[in-house]
Amino acid sequence: MNYKIKSRIWIEVDDRVFLGEGRIQLLKAIDEVGSLSKAAKALQLSYKKAWHLLNSMNTSGKQHITTNSIGGKGGGGTQLTEYGRDLIKIFDQINKNCWSFLDQELEALKKLDEEK
Amino acid sequence: MNYKIKSRIWIEVDDRVFLGEGRIQLLKAIDEVGSLSKAAKALQLSYKKAWHLLNSMNTSGKQHITTNSIGGKGGGGTQLTEYGRDLIKIFDQINKNCWSFLDQELEALKKLDEEK
Repeated sequence: MNYKIKSRIWIEVDDRVFLGEGRIQLLKAIDEVGSLSKAAKALQLSYKKAWHLLNSMNTSGKQHITTNSIGGKGGGGTQLTEYGRDLIKIFDQINKNCWSFLDQELEALKKLDEEK
Repeated sequence: MNYKIKSRIWIEVDDRVFLGEGRIQLLKAIDEVGSLSKAAKALQLSYKKAWHLLNSMNTSGKQHITTNSIGGKGGGGTQLTEYGRDLIKIFDQINKNCWSFLDQELEALKKLDEEK
């Protein structure tokens, strides 16, 4: 049997979502393109939805995750803070660790098949 | 910060879902009430949907997960096989282990807050 085990994780603060896969994707896109509106476009999210997701992260976290730069050629932009980049790293690492852990756990199912 | 980490896991066979939380719930309900139609009702699933879920499990697993008894007072019923009950146990155990594992992993996030 060709088994695979999959997972989706998310982190809550005070019982409300703080970080999840979609939110981390948004942060990565902001880091890449330097603008919330461009990041939203790239992920095919409405600006409103993206703004709410980012606002929720900025107000739930211990520190701000992004800063805004105003004006300049082509208007202002949004940049990740060091804290924001650290959160991406931690989330990705936990996800990776979880996948490895679950791959080991799957052995229980394979063992059952051998016994039966 | 009052962090919690949550997860949802599922197991695939040949890249198609075999077991997930909803499917395990259905198996538990069948085990409780001894009938697919009653189990579907209890979970507010249509009979058609419940039938497809169960059929998918029965045809993807190494062995049959349920057996049907025909006729008798009140019509036939559906019972879990020993293999079916083992799958519930394994899935629940992997889930529990995953939650404990993720609780430890969350320390990385708490440490970040302390450093900053």
